[in-house]
Amino acid sequence: MRSLFIRDEIRFTGEQLVSFWAYENYDILGDNIVAFIGPCEVEEKYIVGIDHFKKKTKIKSRRMLHFLVEHFDLDLEKAILRQKLLVDILKDKLNHRLKGDVLQRWGNDLFDTDFKLTVSATLRTSVSTKIHLGINISSKNTPVKTKGLEDYGIDPDDISQAVMDQYRLDMRLIAQRLCKTRSLR
Amino acid sequence: MRSLFIRDEIRFTGEQLVSFWAYENYDILGDNIVAFIGPCEVEEKYIVGIDHFKKKTKIKSRRMLHFLVEHFDLDLEKAILRQKLLVDILKDKLNHRLKGDVLQRWGNDLFDTDFKLTVSATLRTSVSTKIHLGINISSKNTPVKTKGLEDYGIDPDDISQAVMDQYRLDMRLIAQRLCKTRSLR
Amino acid sequence: MRSLFIRDEIRFTGEQLVSFWAYENYDILGDNIVAFIGPCEVEEKYIVGIDHFKKKTKIKSRRMLHFLVEHFDLDLEKAILRQKLLVDILKDKLNHRLKGDVLQRWGNDLFDTDFKLTVSATLRTSVSTKIHLGINISSKNTPVKTKGLEDYGIDPDDISQAVMDQYRLDMRLIAQRLCKTRSLR
Amino acid sequence: MRSLFIRDEIRFTGEQLVSFWAYENYDILGDNIVAFIGPCEVEEKYIVGIDHFKKKTKIKSRRMLHFLVEHFDLDLEKAILRQKLLVDILKDKLNHRLKGDVLQRWGNDLFDTDFKLTVSATLRTSVSTKIHLGINISSKNTPVKTKGLEDYGIDPDDISQAVMDQYRLDMRLIAQRLCKTRSLR
Amino acid sequence: MRSLFIRDEIRFTGEQLVSFWAYENYDILGDNIVAFIGPCEVEEKYIVGIDHFKKKTKIKSRRMLHFLVEHFDLDLEKAILRQKLLVDILKDKLNHRLKGDVLQRWGNDLFDTDFKLTVSATLRTSVSTKIHLGINISSKNTPVKTKGLEDYGIDPDDISQAVMDQYRLDMRLIAQRLCKTRSLR
Amino acid sequence: MRSLFIRDEIRFTGEQLVSFWAYENYDILGDNIVAFIGPCEVEEKYIVGIDHFKKKTKIKSRRMLHFLVEHFDLDLEKAILRQKLLVDILKDKLNHRLKGDVLQRWGNDLFDTDFKLTVSATLRTSVSTKIHLGINISSKNTPVKTKGLEDYGIDPDDISQAVMDQYRLDMRLIAQRLCKTRSLR
Repeated sequence: MRSLFIRDEIRFTGEQLVSFWAYENYDILGDNIVAFIGPCEVEEKYIVGIDHFKKKTKIKSRRMLHFLVEHFDLDLEKAILRQKLLVDILKDKLNHRLKGDVLQRWGNDLFDTDFKLTVSATLRTSVSTKIHLGINISSKNTPVKTKGLEDYGIDPDDISQAVMDQYRLDMRLIAQRLCKTRSLR
Repeated sequence: MRSLFIRDEIRFTGEQLVSFWAYENYDILGDNIVAFIGPCEVEEKYIVGIDHFKKKTKIKSRRMLHFLVEHFDLDLEKAILRQKLLVDILKDKLNHRLKGDVLQRWGNDLFDTDFKLTVSATLRTSVSTKIHLGINISSKNTPVKTKGLEDYGIDPDDISQAVMDQYRLDMRLIAQRLCKTRSLR
Repeated sequence: MRSLFIRDEIRFTGEQLVSFWAYENYDILGDNIVAFIGPCEVEEKYIVGIDHFKKKTKIKSRRMLHFLVEHFDLDLEKAILRQKLLVDILKDKLNHRLKGDVLQRWGNDLFDTDFKLTVSATLRTSVSTKIHLGINISSKNTPVKTKGLEDYGIDPDDISQAVMDQYRLDMRLIAQRLCKTRSLR
Repeated sequence: MRSLFIRDEIRFTGEQLVSFWAYENYDILGDNIVAFIGPCEVEEKYIVGIDHFKKKTKIKSRRMLHFLVEHFDLDLEKAILRQKLLVDILKDKLNHRLKGDVLQRWGNDLFDTDFKLTVSATLRTSVSTKIHLGINISSKNTPVKTKGLEDYGIDPDDISQAVMDQYRLDMRLIAQRLCKTRSLR
Repeated sequence: MRSLFIRDEIRFTGEQLVSFWAYENYDILGDNIVAFIGPCEVEEKYIVGIDHFKKKTKIKSRRMLHFLVEHFDLDLEKAILRQKLLVDILKDKLNHRLKGDVLQRWGNDLFDTDFKLTVSATLRTSVSTKIHLGINISSKNTPVKTKGLEDYGIDPDDISQAVMDQYRLDMRLIAQRLCKTRSLR
Repeated sequence: MRSLFIRDEIRFTGEQLVSFWAYENYDILGDNIVAFIGPCEVEEKYIVGIDHFKKKTKIKSRRMLHFLVEHFDLDLEKAILRQKLLVDILKDKLNHRLKGDVLQRWGNDLFDTDFKLTVSATLRTSVSTKIHLGINISSKNTPVKTKGLEDYGIDPDDISQAVMDQYRLDMRLIAQRLCKTRSLR
């Protein structure tokens, strides 16, 4: 599994959710996790949650650190489980830097009391599953109460590297465990 | 998904890892998570990690809180992902009670600095996948440096209920999310 | 599994076959069976049988009781087997009310001697499988020899409830049986 | 899919449920349905319903017509759906001969009012799924109220051929339908 | 599995890669292999290799013998393995006629030293997987160094029949082997 | 995917077909291909072909070069397709060294006219699929007409390395192709 911190500023509109985005734009072949920084404004046609789609929820943030994961299998449930793991990793890496139990996961989102920090989506494409996880850098001008990495003095570069490394490590350990586990009746 | 805190003291030998254990002993039908308290001494034939099996690792503890999960599908990778989630939930519930970032997950185990608190295994049976997660209550007489719930003044009843509730909630949300997610190309 | 008898008169054009139709229109989340009444005239682009599509078969009826089932898995063969079960349930509920062996299933259709009563289709969407089963209420003005519920004095409300209840019961029993069955070598 | 009416009298003990039984004994390769006549007394180790296994249910009949189906895939849910279809076919062929709505399916069993006629089980082996469906010929000396083919003057040969032919036809139509069905979004 | 040598001259543009092409045009139902002769010029929208799509590779030949395979399952890896088998069969049938070890397979292509003879692609549609394998008849006016059947005096009719027969035989033997193989622990 | 030429002389009895053999004996984790030299005499309980098992076929050779492949997935059909590829690779590497079209594949075996050179089997274990392919080194004292590598002056070391390298290369290309292939409708 490859990873990359992309230096380009990229506006996350949802078009990054389609299959092969990392390959077509950054020549990254196979399962991968990439990170980049940029505003977030998801176009309606890329809103994959049918509940949000129906309510026309606005998914928007001024400046976010984005994680984008692609696995070349077609199992959506597996992707949702990996999404949970990714969100937990981000939480743990942040709490570790904040030296406390500051952030909690509710569903697929991170909160500091009732301040929301993240947006996230998981979906199946015709050839893969993809996970998007965005965490606010700035918490200004957001429609709901939010916090961002700036409010905690967290460096996006450092945290993104820590998260990507841990995610890749966990994926490697899972792949090994699959080849080390006996069955019982 | 059903859950149960079993009041009987049960010695965890590994025989609880076979399929239908919760049904045969406690009439719990379908996907389930149960918890109980008892010593841990895994018999060799129930050691599912082929690496541990080969090295004849002793898996042993004087008194543990055990979680035992059964899902009636056959996807081991999915089970390993759920195991990660269960371990993360236990960690978060403990850290929350300890008001700090005290415990970390390394692979599938929880540590307080270099003190180990847990053992865990995931496997496929002929009809289901199962997860075992045990956390020391007592840390006395263990072969490696360990800590247990007693060292932190944590009540096994309370923590087991919190963990089982959260796990069931996450499973319910995942099942719903599967029915709310559009695909993209 | 949820069910609903929809009180609105709905023209079945095939657009109801796309994924999430019950959620988008009636807030029904997850596997479900719904029923409604209305004319049937399937637009060409919604004809899923490639044989009918090729022959440009007209699928049309003045007034039908429609059943529409959605399961959030992707196994078309399983969906076709569930379709057979649904057709058999409808047949049995009707024969029971007619106190005789009046209707037979040929393939996926119900006949009274050579009078045709039903149309049916099963398909995979990008996230689910769907079954449509329509039974004539009126048998007037149909291109082939048909009969309808009116010809037998059957109340669409009553029969639709009986069919939906039985289908849900069978699905629940199947889900339980999956968690109660041992394997042999 | 091949079929065979086996002329040998065979005591159904459950050993016929293991994989390759039709191949090892009658050289029938691949998916198949066979029928034979004989007493039924299932040994405990072949009782696959964990509920019956736990309650040590006696599964016994003096003389039965047995159907035994093997499909070389591993999907138990699909096998249970096929079992429903097989039971429905048997019911319809009998009701047709009895010129009425005499028998009903409850779950996987056929009843004439509260007289039980059948036993049935479905399971996964290590290479296939199997269905057993037995219908009483004689209703004498059974532990519960039963009826059998003799009570209705039904010839086991004739009915077994009709059932096997219909089951094979339905399987063939399903296989064709799988190759004739377009997907929608 | 059915096969057909199509007598029509057909320009291979890639539109033949969509699902049901053989059924819609030649009434061939189910898994099949067909062959035909014609020029090759793949339109950009039908280039399934994302690497070729990105580089806008021209896939073009003046006159080719085309093989087109469709299997009604959705496993792309299996399709790629079958593609390897098809390419190997073509190679062996040609080498046999050339009485030597003239052609080698590199990846999915056949070469005579550094002269390329074939193009090939495998893909998943919404209902099936498809394989295209084209071998030059003429080697004139190709963008890279190529050879074609004419250069070796090989008759396209004869070779296409030999290849289709062998592929069908191998598929039949594989289907049988699936029903003849025991499992071990 | 790892590979290893094992220097120990090993008698192939079939016990090498069980899961984790390469890990338990040579610490090779994950998908792998290994080769070794030794006599072949398969014990009855390890004969996985139910046809051979029934006929009690003797599978025996004085001295063979053995290939043993393990993939940690459970799809037997995929394993049989990979077996075909492995047999084809062995054939091509031999024919290349023999500078001619000397060996042909019939089913899963290699022949020089009517002299048989190989034995082969594919199976599913509880956690993986495995392929065995053995080619005679000596052709002496075999029950049927055989040839062996000695008859052609082929060095087992050299050929085994060439075969393992090619098989690993093909597996790597297949894994990449899976992540480079777009879908069509």
